[in-house]
Amino acid sequence: MMSVRLNCDIGESFGAWQMGLDAEVMPFIDCANIACGFHASDPSIMRRTVALAVEHDVLIGAHPAYPDLVGFGRRSMACSPTEIENMLLYQIGALEGMCRAEGTQVGYVKPHGAMYNDMMRNPQSLRAVMQAVARYNPELPLMLMSTRDNSASQALADKIGISLWFEVFADRAYDAAGMLVSRAQPGSVHHDAATIIKQATDLATGTALTASDGSSLTLRADTLCVHGDNAGSVAAVRQIRAALSALQGTAKA
Amino acid sequence: MMSVRLNCDIGESFGAWQMGLDAEVMPFIDCANIACGFHASDPSIMRRTVALAVEHDVLIGAHPAYPDLVGFGRRSMACSPTEIENMLLYQIGALEGMCRAEGTQVGYVKPHGAMYNDMMRNPQSLRAVMQAVARYNPELPLMLMSTRDNSASQALADKIGISLWFEVFADRAYDAAGMLVSRAQPGSVHHDAATIIKQATDLATGTALTASDGSSLTLRADTLCVHGDNAGSVAAVRQIRAALSALQGTAKA
Amino acid sequence: MMSVRLNCDIGESFGAWQMGLDAEVMPFIDCANIACGFHASDPSIMRRTVALAVEHDVLIGAHPAYPDLVGFGRRSMACSPTEIENMLLYQIGALEGMCRAEGTQVGYVKPHGAMYNDMMRNPQSLRAVMQAVARYNPELPLMLMSTRDNSASQALADKIGISLWFEVFADRAYDAAGMLVSRAQPGSVHHDAATIIKQATDLATGTALTASDGSSLTLRADTLCVHGDNAGSVAAVRQIRAALSALQGTAKA
Amino acid sequence: MMSVRLNCDIGESFGAWQMGLDAEVMPFIDCANIACGFHASDPSIMRRTVALAVEHDVLIGAHPAYPDLVGFGRRSMACSPTEIENMLLYQIGALEGMCRAEGTQVGYVKPHGAMYNDMMRNPQSLRAVMQAVARYNPELPLMLMSTRDNSASQALADKIGISLWFEVFADRAYDAAGMLVSRAQPGSVHHDAATIIKQATDLATGTALTASDGSSLTLRADTLCVHGDNAGSVAAVRQIRAALSALQGTAKA
Repeated sequence: MMSVRLNCDIGESFGAWQMGLDAEVMPFIDCANIACGFHASDPSIMRRTVALAVEHDVLIGAHPAYPDLVGFGRRSMACSPTEIENMLLYQIGALEGMCRAEGTQVGYVKPHGAMYNDMMRNPQSLRAVMQAVARYNPELPLMLMSTRDNSASQALADKIGISLWFEVFADRAYDAAGMLVSRAQPGSVHHDAATIIKQATDLATGTALTASDGSSLTLRADTLCVHGDNAGSVAAVRQIRAALSALQGTAKA
Repeated sequence: MMSVRLNCDIGESFGAWQMGLDAEVMPFIDCANIACGFHASDPSIMRRTVALAVEHDVLIGAHPAYPDLVGFGRRSMACSPTEIENMLLYQIGALEGMCRAEGTQVGYVKPHGAMYNDMMRNPQSLRAVMQAVARYNPELPLMLMSTRDNSASQALADKIGISLWFEVFADRAYDAAGMLVSRAQPGSVHHDAATIIKQATDLATGTALTASDGSSLTLRADTLCVHGDNAGSVAAVRQIRAALSALQGTAKA
Repeated sequence: MMSVRLNCDIGESFGAWQMGLDAEVMPFIDCANIACGFHASDPSIMRRTVALAVEHDVLIGAHPAYPDLVGFGRRSMACSPTEIENMLLYQIGALEGMCRAEGTQVGYVKPHGAMYNDMMRNPQSLRAVMQAVARYNPELPLMLMSTRDNSASQALADKIGISLWFEVFADRAYDAAGMLVSRAQPGSVHHDAATIIKQATDLATGTALTASDGSSLTLRADTLCVHGDNAGSVAAVRQIRAALSALQGTAKA
Repeated sequence: MMSVRLNCDIGESFGAWQMGLDAEVMPFIDCANIACGFHASDPSIMRRTVALAVEHDVLIGAHPAYPDLVGFGRRSMACSPTEIENMLLYQIGALEGMCRAEGTQVGYVKPHGAMYNDMMRNPQSLRAVMQAVARYNPELPLMLMSTRDNSASQALADKIGISLWFEVFADRAYDAAGMLVSRAQPGSVHHDAATIIKQATDLATGTALTASDGSSLTLRADTLCVHGDNAGSVAAVRQIRAALSALQGTAKA
């Protein structure tokens, strides 16, 4: 039976501005996607966030982004593959600086926001991201979105020499291709706790989901994305953690 | 006899803006103080600069600064010791990311501009810089300014557990305390090649200089700061390199 | 009897990050010190903030700062008088762009954070701020801190040709010179509502305060600084507004 | 006979980094597209650039861009129409702040780089740009690219209530639609002075050009874009100015 790691965006405060319930959600996750200063965070927040992850024995992931604080990294930028590769190396390295000071190290990479979306849509961007990881440390897995057919990205990763962790979502509807249904569509986001828990356990056990067109959809699920934005999302994480722990017979918390 | 490393600020272009004759000066220096994106440079320029240093077998130094691109890191900022420590970890790590991609590593740390000046004036800032180096990698030397009496900074470094490389200048007049005479004073900057070469060889051989008050001044000289801003300064570096090589019987170029 | 305007820092969100209860506090203030993008805010937040001020018939003030988003403009930077003058012109103008789009205009200037403190401590900085205002529009008043003796700043303003609005605080203890007692001192910040209201009404009526050394202190009070950070501070603003309205027989809200 | 204004990007230095021969080219142009701090420039450079334009009686244009210093505003960003409108208001206003201090005012608007390209390709972006100008000051003309058929943009400008200045290029080949031939194509950029002068005078006199497919192309030419990057481009501007002055019987220099 599969073990699905819970990953969560963490450390997204900036300067005097707070965002997210990092301390509340950290005890319940496995992997912390830590902002690296391009879409959120600053050196002091990164340091504290790494220390918090260490305290809770959470794996530290670099969460690099386009250089766009005002847009929170959600606006696509027409960066060249070389620029993307280099901005990843910069951000992963910067986070590693904090990790060294806290006696730990970067454990994986997950691009943020528009860079994540561009990587899923544009093979040149995906290749640039993969090359950055390979050149930084080919033992670091890259998190990307699981779809019905992951063979193209897996083939590219094999060629470049890195491993992939495919990510799934418990609170989003999927279409037949295994892509997320647009938030603009009704029913695209699950708000009901029971639905979310069921989708999480289905994904964790390799049980097929029902796609938006009614077809059956089985997704590789190395990791499940959860959220620590507010009290409601943290409560959902606790429930997902409890459900998965019951399944897996292991207790994170 | 002492071996004095030539160090030079390098990689200070930014985006579309060029600065410095990096390719011209790199063959003649030992240590490249590479800008880390806070006062100059960006990820792609950092990557190319690291590659250029590797090509010429030049030791790579992190050249961190206050976050002030407009002011080129020359404006002091009232940052706390914790902020200083963390902005150093961030910048050293970011440069290390480029080094990993180019098969090398950061070899030392030299703060830039106002941060360098503040470190020399303010013991709290110096301690913050030293702690950043110690926590990042205590085997990295910290470059700082050599003065008549380096005992206080050496004692602090010994306590914190890092090594120091004391830096001297061949083109600047010193006062009796071994501090640089202010540029506002007449005679503070040497423009004559023969004077510069003589001061460089005196420093390299442990020969006393004459301070601005006429007193004799002997300075520990682990490294000599040179400049690659323009054709004149690059020519001076070549002459200094030739003079030191003749002294030391080793030929960098 | 004097009419004391309530001024409040407003529009200090940034990108995806929220700060302050702008909509809650705006109905109760006279003057909105609107962040201009250097320590907080961005073009879209500035536009919305200006529109909110217009809706509540609140006078719009430019709240310029040093370029330091990470430090929220609270870290002093060693900027030259020319740099200070120009960064003020830039920020006042930028805010005016939003005002023009909303059919209004900038009504005064109040520097933020470290720039405000530097202006009060350093005559060169004060002159630079005044010259920026004079060159932008000499009809705009400059807000600065009222002290026991305002004659030096008033003389400089007269010479430069601008008017001053002297600002007082209801929630802070003053020393004999009319300077705020450091927050590090016990008793420096008033938390008791009755104390705050009494100090506000004393200031508004020209009644002397008791300084920290027991001496009597009368302060010119053109405007009183209030806060909209949280529910408690907004409640205090409502109470101060009610007390002043009762005094003045005018009802802002 | 038409009078064609020469416009040139100006004030594109940043902090310690120099770019462009502003002082050399300013005497020969009519319209200075002045960078506003988002892709280049800073408050002090903007102030000096405005003063230089005033000295040479050159009309001042705001040259706003996406917030991308590293990419020099050449990378498209997925900004919303509201974001585009507000970032224009911010930048035009900021430049106006400098103009007020120098006794002049902003005279037109020309978006820079990727924002210019996006405006020409995307009607939503064009509308956002036009609305910003209209809301800032509907008497300011907007510069945009002249093509074979300018009717759609003219209709939109008429509806929104602003005027347009259509811009042409003397050193670029056009295709049949009146779009610039991609720089990737051979023959897309004219390097021969005689060719450039002839195209400038043809455009100024309403003489048809020959498009890349051999068809005849007549372009509305309110303004001609010239460059001040280097000695060669400045020499070209002097020649174009001389040729146009001869035609028009007016002498700018």
